[in-house]
Amino acid sequence: MKVAISLLLSETPRFEVTALTRHSSLQKPAVLELQKQGVQIVTVDLAGTEDEVAKALFGIDAVISAIYGGSVIDEIPLINAAKAAGIQRYLPCFFATIAPPKGALLLREMKEDVLNHIKNVRLPHTVIDVGWWYQVNLPRLPSGRIDYAVMETSDGIAGGGNIPIALTDLRDVGTYVVRIISDPRTLNRMVFAYNELERVSGEKLQRKYVSIPVTAEEIQSHIHDVEAMNPAPDTVDFVTLAQLEYWYSCGIRGDNTPENAKYLGYLLAKDLYPDIIGVTLEAYTHEVLEWRGRRVYEHLMSLPSIRAVNKAWK
Amino acid sequence: MKVAISLLLSETPRFEVTALTRHSSLQKPAVLELQKQGVQIVTVDLAGTEDEVAKALFGIDAVISAIYGGSVIDEIPLINAAKAAGIQRYLPCFFATIAPPKGALLLREMKEDVLNHIKNVRLPHTVIDVGWWYQVNLPRLPSGRIDYAVMETSDGIAGGGNIPIALTDLRDVGTYVVRIISDPRTLNRMVFAYNELERVSGEKLQRKYVSIPVTAEEIQSHIHDVEAMNPAPDTVDFVTLAQLEYWYSCGIRGDNTPENAKYLGYLLAKDLYPDIIGVTLEAYTHEVLEWRGRRVYEHLMSLPSIRAVNKAWK
Repeated sequence: MKVAISLLLSETPRFEVTALTRHSSLQKPAVLELQKQGVQIVTVDLAGTEDEVAKALFGIDAVISAIYGGSVIDEIPLINAAKAAGIQRYLPCFFATIAPPKGALLLREMKEDVLNHIKNVRLPHTVIDVGWWYQVNLPRLPSGRIDYAVMETSDGIAGGGNIPIALTDLRDVGTYVVRIISDPRTLNRMVFAYNELERVSGEKLQRKYVSIPVTAEEIQSHIHDVEAMNPAPDTVDFVTLAQLEYWYSCGIRGDNTPENAKYLGYLLAKDLYPDIIGVTLEAYTHEVLEWRGRRVYEHLMSLPSIRAVNKAWK
Repeated sequence: MKVAISLLLSETPRFEVTALTRHSSLQKPAVLELQKQGVQIVTVDLAGTEDEVAKALFGIDAVISAIYGGSVIDEIPLINAAKAAGIQRYLPCFFATIAPPKGALLLREMKEDVLNHIKNVRLPHTVIDVGWWYQVNLPRLPSGRIDYAVMETSDGIAGGGNIPIALTDLRDVGTYVVRIISDPRTLNRMVFAYNELERVSGEKLQRKYVSIPVTAEEIQSHIHDVEAMNPAPDTVDFVTLAQLEYWYSCGIRGDNTPENAKYLGYLLAKDLYPDIIGVTLEAYTHEVLEWRGRRVYEHLMSLPSIRAVNKAWK
């Protein structure tokens, strides 16, 4: 996503894009790719002094955080530096499903703590949530044909109900961000940008895929099991816990809908920018069936422990 | 405030008002006064079962919590019962100054936890904040002439600056509430209703009163002292801590302004209902000078320990 946003911004003539990265990441392919696209690369150490971080931000108008979801608390020094540098619009790393601030998703709770810090220092900001990503939601086929592209955890259908879920192609996030950060109506507001409203356990998907229905009780019991491991944010167990909580929040509670977003105070991108359509779920599905998909979280999913967790789950 | 809201609602023909009270409070003068005004009195035990509390709420459209600020967490069973009873609009006990959700005021932090619970169970609601009350803000006169009506803690002026502070007469809260709960624009929103924007340390008050200027450092050091006592919510030390934090938030941080309210997502009552004016600070001041004022928090302020705290403070 970091790359998608930066590329889109760099393709838009009115933006000059600077990417902040750790010194140790300077030679990573994604960073080199950005550099090739004309993005200015600046190294920054969030554990350094506020002055040093602020220096990297002087002259910049907007900061977009695309940090790993388990590390959002590391944004605190970035936020303090952004305030010191006079940043006009700060986008914390949200970019996920609609959920209440507390009580449903550990990841959302951590993001709320970050948002509360932003409000405490009175930094101009915009929160963008995008619903559940297509890229983590395609159920596996019995043939194993699309295993190369789906999450190892994408093995069940939460609940047996017919709960609507808002979904977005990760690659469209950049399109939404470009519009939202240029729009005065979204300053200090939360915006919900999604492509399609689907019923994951409904007929659209079930017609094409065979998946295991999972009950609310089964998910909760599995959440308790993984919680008991008290997983650190940089482990696969943490990702598994997040995935299970997303299932429960989206599939059982029905949190991830435009209605709930409006209830929670979000503006809807579909109201603000009716011209943005984005990739359809059907088009994305065809891409994956035609070997053009790409797995997300590869660095975590390839670790052996994620397989152990999933084995216990089955 | 409980009385003011209920009376105003009961005077408005389209409202039928029910007041919930503890069984042990049935004979209190305020409750008897409500009963005389035609308000239906229903006893409820928030420590009872959800079913029992919900039964008291069936058939009611809106619930207004006017619980003591230190006890807002006791609203959780009331909120669950309101959800079960299908309440269309729940007003949690906010009714105070504008401040960020976390990091500035312990009382506001507790209210945020309550609001997060409301959002978690998806209860229709409206938050109303009213700024700082006239009734807790009049500084004492050297002559002692108005001591009968002012808070024992109203002894200083926070900071030496010129920070704007929004103030409201407690008796106008009912007027705002009647309008706000009848207005579909305020559903699931936060509304800031205040009478006047003043500079407490500015010339308006200083021309008439002599007060002790208090520095940010002095307030912070006193906050640390009272925090160290770890005061329970039903003690005068807790009220003192709250008062000191209000001073810091309003007088030093400048949190309690319409601009900050808008930044935090509030609608302004002055935009929604420009016809509501309310009692002016000047009129209220005259009332107090003419012996028609009334002290708030009398039950706490008359305890000896508040005097001890204030003595240490001076």
